[in-house]
Amino acid sequence: MSEFSLSRRLAAEALGTAMLVGTVVGSGIMADRLSDDVAVSLLGNTIPTGAILVVLITILGPISGAHFNPAVTFVFWLKRHLGLVVGLSYISAQIIGGICGSLIAHVMFELPVLQASTTVRTGAGQWVAEIVATFGLLASILAGIRFRETAVPWLVGLYITAAYWFTASTSFANPAVAISRAFTDTFAGIRPIDLPGFIVAEVAGAALALAFFSWLLRSEKPSD
Amino acid sequence: MSEFSLSRRLAAEALGTAMLVGTVVGSGIMADRLSDDVAVSLLGNTIPTGAILVVLITILGPISGAHFNPAVTFVFWLKRHLGLVVGLSYISAQIIGGICGSLIAHVMFELPVLQASTTVRTGAGQWVAEIVATFGLLASILAGIRFRETAVPWLVGLYITAAYWFTASTSFANPAVAISRAFTDTFAGIRPIDLPGFIVAEVAGAALALAFFSWLLRSEKPSD
Amino acid sequence: MSEFSLSRRLAAEALGTAMLVGTVVGSGIMADRLSDDVAVSLLGNTIPTGAILVVLITILGPISGAHFNPAVTFVFWLKRHLGLVVGLSYISAQIIGGICGSLIAHVMFELPVLQASTTVRTGAGQWVAEIVATFGLLASILAGIRFRETAVPWLVGLYITAAYWFTASTSFANPAVAISRAFTDTFAGIRPIDLPGFIVAEVAGAALALAFFSWLLRSEKPSD
Amino acid sequence: MSEFSLSRRLAAEALGTAMLVGTVVGSGIMADRLSDDVAVSLLGNTIPTGAILVVLITILGPISGAHFNPAVTFVFWLKRHLGLVVGLSYISAQIIGGICGSLIAHVMFELPVLQASTTVRTGAGQWVAEIVATFGLLASILAGIRFRETAVPWLVGLYITAAYWFTASTSFANPAVAISRAFTDTFAGIRPIDLPGFIVAEVAGAALALAFFSWLLRSEKPSD
Repeated sequence: MSEFSLSRRLAAEALGTAMLVGTVVGSGIMADRLSDDVAVSLLGNTIPTGAILVVLITILGPISGAHFNPAVTFVFWLKRHLGLVVGLSYISAQIIGGICGSLIAHVMFELPVLQASTTVRTGAGQWVAEIVATFGLLASILAGIRFRETAVPWLVGLYITAAYWFTASTSFANPAVAISRAFTDTFAGIRPIDLPGFIVAEVAGAALALAFFSWLLRSEKPSD
Repeated sequence: MSEFSLSRRLAAEALGTAMLVGTVVGSGIMADRLSDDVAVSLLGNTIPTGAILVVLITILGPISGAHFNPAVTFVFWLKRHLGLVVGLSYISAQIIGGICGSLIAHVMFELPVLQASTTVRTGAGQWVAEIVATFGLLASILAGIRFRETAVPWLVGLYITAAYWFTASTSFANPAVAISRAFTDTFAGIRPIDLPGFIVAEVAGAALALAFFSWLLRSEKPSD
Repeated sequence: MSEFSLSRRLAAEALGTAMLVGTVVGSGIMADRLSDDVAVSLLGNTIPTGAILVVLITILGPISGAHFNPAVTFVFWLKRHLGLVVGLSYISAQIIGGICGSLIAHVMFELPVLQASTTVRTGAGQWVAEIVATFGLLASILAGIRFRETAVPWLVGLYITAAYWFTASTSFANPAVAISRAFTDTFAGIRPIDLPGFIVAEVAGAALALAFFSWLLRSEKPSD
Repeated sequence: MSEFSLSRRLAAEALGTAMLVGTVVGSGIMADRLSDDVAVSLLGNTIPTGAILVVLITILGPISGAHFNPAVTFVFWLKRHLGLVVGLSYISAQIIGGICGSLIAHVMFELPVLQASTTVRTGAGQWVAEIVATFGLLASILAGIRFRETAVPWLVGLYITAAYWFTASTSFANPAVAISRAFTDTFAGIRPIDLPGFIVAEVAGAALALAFFSWLLRSEKPSD
């Protein structure tokens, strides 16, 4: 479906996820260093994340689809937009790229390159939050593609801007980003042991969104 | 007028209002927890609310019109865009969806699910504020639809971003959202007893906007 | 040139300037009340002002041109887009509307309706700032109309967002808004005695922009 | 390629860089004066910078291409979009304009007009940050032009908004801006002696982006 070779598509997924995680982790470090007010730090984490998503999806979307997120790739695989092998390659590229993003942030801020997070993020509230967060993300993508495809970069950027604040987990909503954030013991980190709960919740939220929006988007007189 | 079935349209209204209220209440809890500076908390409440409105109106507008607001449904009923039964169904879906939004926010933040607000919001200043707030909201929608329909999601998101700050009531401008916010004793709450004043003011502001813009938008040589 | 009657155009100018000033003054009061950090207050003043400008210019621009600003009307009169009588009517509507905006803000926030500002804003730095601010505003409008007319609401909203911070005067850039802000002794106020300096600087900045951009926008092979 | 004369193109580059640096330096002074929370100050520096970039690239792009940045001019020279003499004229206009921007900011804020910064910005972390920052900026521009040219003003504004926070250097990403910021001993300053490290890193990041995106953007069936 893309006019670009698989190697370019995987490079786009890796680069995009690296820049996304680099932004999440880097802006978290910067914001945390500069303020004692955690809400100010979260603003300094939110605004860059939303902004970079608009940029990355606009410039890399035409190459790879700009998933940067195994939950998104999983949904598009279920919708048969890509095959199993390509899907798994995408997910590998996302995870590798994302981890590199964490490490590059550490290099820029002159912190130890290899770290493991100690930030506890667990419990029913967090898991419900990740289900809600990923449900909303996929809702934005699926309905956005259906009704106004050129707006998708803005929809995702704005959705995540909101979800950082309205979910108790600050909305990871992305297994590759979650894994990458386990590699940093800074503002954006998550304990490795808390990853399974997050990833299961994220995949569940994505599947739920696919099921619900498959029904919701079916019009009487189909238009696409 | 919509190509979608009524059940899908009601589902879109309920889901949209749930996500809107979930964002208002959830980001209010998050912002209030993280900061002692109330203006910072209000920023952390404003930016997510504006952002999610752009998303929700873009992705659900083509299904239901994306009212999420009985005052908007009321105005479109007066303009005969929908009948009484559909209108009342819309309003029911908005209220039910909105209340669910409050409850889900409580689940995510591990607070008691059922709450009643104790936040006093009453008095002439507040009521004038709600009249102004809802007048401006309907102005944005009515003139926006007339002159640049694709911009309406942005107009509403940006209008509410401004109105959170320029009105003394932080601009509820929405009876369904007001009712839902009575179900949370957190940053965004409103005492149930203060609801009638808000709702009357909101409906009055909406009717005023319809009257004024019906005159203002009538051009010499009609173009629509 | 507009398909709307003069009374509608004047109503649009009055309403738009009222909502603009209401936002500037109202969000200033709200932000100032909620925070001890003046930069946070200025953020709470900036974001609403930029946001409402995008809305107002989009919804009222097709009716009146959405000047809301005597310096803009003056430049369009110099460019012969409107005659002297209409121009002076526009300016009257802007000033009356703007003052109403201040008074309504006071009503909403339950402050004395009639006030006179005591905030000193004078000196060479302030005047240079107003020249720069209004030069940039007119630059955005004149070149915006020439190259991408549909973007003008965003250009003005974003320009003022920036100018609130990069000018020492927080960028009034508008004689009608300046006059209206003399009617409020709150965050956004300006002493009546300081008005002449601001207004002269604003008109000078506007004229300068017209002169410079009349040269700059002249292409070898004219395209408009 | 431009329909505008060289003198107008150089005027656009000088004016645009002046307004960009005026915004960076001016908003830095304002934000630093008003807050003790450095993250709040950085927000007050970031939002205006991102906003003015959208404006300046939209209104001056059709005249000169809106480089405002020797690293961008260098890349377009490598791509043979402009010759050596025009390229060097562009860079001179950018540096002269940028320095004027710093000086005008000082005049507005009533500070000594001529200053030299004493802010230390050096070390491997800072240099890696500038490589990353400029790589991302050129990525946004090169892929943006290829896939959605009208979005480039937004892409650059949003990218810089993010990069202020995710890079340890707050993302100068521009040799002309860096030189101009050496002329101010305020929030945005950089010691003159630290300029060479920044400029080398910026040019390296730009070249790297050109090399990588020349490969990445080559589709199987070329479309431009």
